[in-house]
Amino acid sequence: MNDLGQRARAASRHMARANSGAKNRALAAIAAALRSHRSAILDANRQDMDKARTNGLESALLDRLELTGERFDGMVEGLEQVIGLADPIGAISDMSYRPSGIQVGKMRVPLGVIGIIYESRPNVTIDAASLCLKSGNAAILRGGSEAINSNQAIAECLRIGLREAGLPEDAVQVIETTDRAAVGELISHPEYVDVIVPRGGKGLIERISRDARVPVIKHLDGNCHVYIDIDADHDKAIAIAINAKTHRYGTCNTMETLLIHQAVATQLLPKLADQYREAGVELRGCAQSRALVADMKEATEADWREEYLAPILAVKIVADLDEAMDHISAYSSGHTESIVSENWSNARRFLAEVDSSSVMINASTRFADGFEYGLGAEIGISTDRIHARGPVGLEGLTSQKWIVFGDGQIRG
Amino acid sequence: MNDLGQRARAASRHMARANSGAKNRALAAIAAALRSHRSAILDANRQDMDKARTNGLESALLDRLELTGERFDGMVEGLEQVIGLADPIGAISDMSYRPSGIQVGKMRVPLGVIGIIYESRPNVTIDAASLCLKSGNAAILRGGSEAINSNQAIAECLRIGLREAGLPEDAVQVIETTDRAAVGELISHPEYVDVIVPRGGKGLIERISRDARVPVIKHLDGNCHVYIDIDADHDKAIAIAINAKTHRYGTCNTMETLLIHQAVATQLLPKLADQYREAGVELRGCAQSRALVADMKEATEADWREEYLAPILAVKIVADLDEAMDHISAYSSGHTESIVSENWSNARRFLAEVDSSSVMINASTRFADGFEYGLGAEIGISTDRIHARGPVGLEGLTSQKWIVFGDGQIRG
Repeated sequence: MNDLGQRARAASRHMARANSGAKNRALAAIAAALRSHRSAILDANRQDMDKARTNGLESALLDRLELTGERFDGMVEGLEQVIGLADPIGAISDMSYRPSGIQVGKMRVPLGVIGIIYESRPNVTIDAASLCLKSGNAAILRGGSEAINSNQAIAECLRIGLREAGLPEDAVQVIETTDRAAVGELISHPEYVDVIVPRGGKGLIERISRDARVPVIKHLDGNCHVYIDIDADHDKAIAIAINAKTHRYGTCNTMETLLIHQAVATQLLPKLADQYREAGVELRGCAQSRALVADMKEATEADWREEYLAPILAVKIVADLDEAMDHISAYSSGHTESIVSENWSNARRFLAEVDSSSVMINASTRFADGFEYGLGAEIGISTDRIHARGPVGLEGLTSQKWIVFGDGQIRG
Repeated sequence: MNDLGQRARAASRHMARANSGAKNRALAAIAAALRSHRSAILDANRQDMDKARTNGLESALLDRLELTGERFDGMVEGLEQVIGLADPIGAISDMSYRPSGIQVGKMRVPLGVIGIIYESRPNVTIDAASLCLKSGNAAILRGGSEAINSNQAIAECLRIGLREAGLPEDAVQVIETTDRAAVGELISHPEYVDVIVPRGGKGLIERISRDARVPVIKHLDGNCHVYIDIDADHDKAIAIAINAKTHRYGTCNTMETLLIHQAVATQLLPKLADQYREAGVELRGCAQSRALVADMKEATEADWREEYLAPILAVKIVADLDEAMDHISAYSSGHTESIVSENWSNARRFLAEVDSSSVMINASTRFADGFEYGLGAEIGISTDRIHARGPVGLEGLTSQKWIVFGDGQIRG
């Protein structure tokens, strides 16, 4: 770790000074190297897949590990899209004169060295590397051990591209050991690593957050809510409630609990229940909801807290906006909540008072995503409160230093 | 801690919704309560001072503990100035339309519950409370045990003011035990505390950073540099180099090492040495510097790293801008550095490439301060890289959530 860390720190100094042109040339050269090493990388991935199958890896994880030709091309295209994003580094803002005559403002700068710990998903290696490089950071990547051959083949292309652009090869280091102790090392050295981004299961993230001596940008649960207000437009309410649940079941921005104002539940809930039934979604409701929908199971306290990531939805009828917001405050994981309402004051209160990383008015929770928000790509979605909340793109991998312009001012 | 934490969490929800008027009324009511309890607070402080003297507290710490009439009035005036600061909460920025038709932007929100651990300085109780309240946060304050009577008397005024303004008394809780275990508790409960701001000695801050399970905004050393470039205006260079060192010796933004370009050292260093000698500043220099100034001591490796906080200055002659920036990169604590130069390209490189929380051109490092930067007040100066760097004012106690406006958009 000492050698790796020192090389990352030295590379981060170089990267912080690299101009946009050099960074973009490196990304383009990496893309070219990936394309010319396509078959070698796909071969390496087949080796990983064979070994994982032999070891009985479960099918969902095998699916994430697999790099099909189509996924490979998508990965390279994603990298090329990062070239087109605006370089956040060096942006100067908020310059203003002070009574002393100095001019004070801020300049955007990289964080330094970013450690990323992720599952056996080889495409994350390229996603993470490209965002870290574009934002002027050095990266240390620690992917899941099942993807070791794929990641080493990709790492070779990263080195080729960085070398061709005259940037340090150590700007992205892919840890090549499958030793689990490497994770413990990575999160224990604030002198080498400035921030850790863990991506993976809740258990891994909780363990890293607990043990890390380096700041962590973490993503825990997405227990998201849609609240249908008394003044909701019914067509919008139905479209959003169906989309937020059924568009994809396994994503963190999927609605897990639907809240409906009592005055509109009689009209809306049976219609919604029909559509959920057709889509194969199991409903678990409060007593009032169950009185309106014959086959609805009873929701327990645990259901209000659950991130199902499955075709199951908890349903609760509430007396008013306040009860809806109290429920969200008590049970939400603070990821994303949406109100469906045409009432200005209710929408305004929901926007101001709901304390989640994304708060929406009349839109599906499924929009909570770096691409949909215009970040171009995301390194993750933060459920933390400091530094960055919600989708973290290039800007989330930067910080701002203060800058002062003077012409000889001294303090009196 | 469970009871305290739950009450803080409940109060933080209330504070997040409090409008600017209510927050300002509470601050004004606290100021009025402080004024009407002036003699009781000064009496309580005298009790603390008597006990501290009996216990043999050293004189620098006694000085910080003491609340003279003048200091008391300054403390209340500082509180009243916070009323005049703009409320950061609720500010909406960067709203833009996305191809899907949703409009995406950010809204500034409080961090939640802020834990502040500080030395026996009663005025910090009011500084910290006022900034946390104005920024819509709840605070848990843990001051040094020597100030317990002063802090309890001040806490009573905080409760009175909050109650009068209809805000929860628990919005600021002053821990009343002198038990050291309370600090360990405060930094171990992310469910109750969102961020810890430790203020005090380096040992305390290092220990808290190491043990905390809650994010920490910390301030370690201020080993600040001034670099006099080959193209410096000599009058400005002398004024800045003298001011940055001699204006105050014990502050974190005081210059600790002076770097001078070799081409101007022969002219400038003897003049500077005369002025430093007059001010009683001991110089410790490299071999080249010592050849120019007869009575200069030899600087050792340790001198380049030292935050003297005393009338001592390390001096080094450098070959060029690159050597100056290499020295800063190797030895600076990343607090504040200033270049004195009339050369556009050198100034521009210094600004972009020096990686410190404040980077200045032709100004004294002593300006690195919340008041001088126009923040109105500061809760501390961060030497961290994520969330906030440099002076942390109201904005540093906030974060931004994403907001999405739609009219029924669903994801396709």
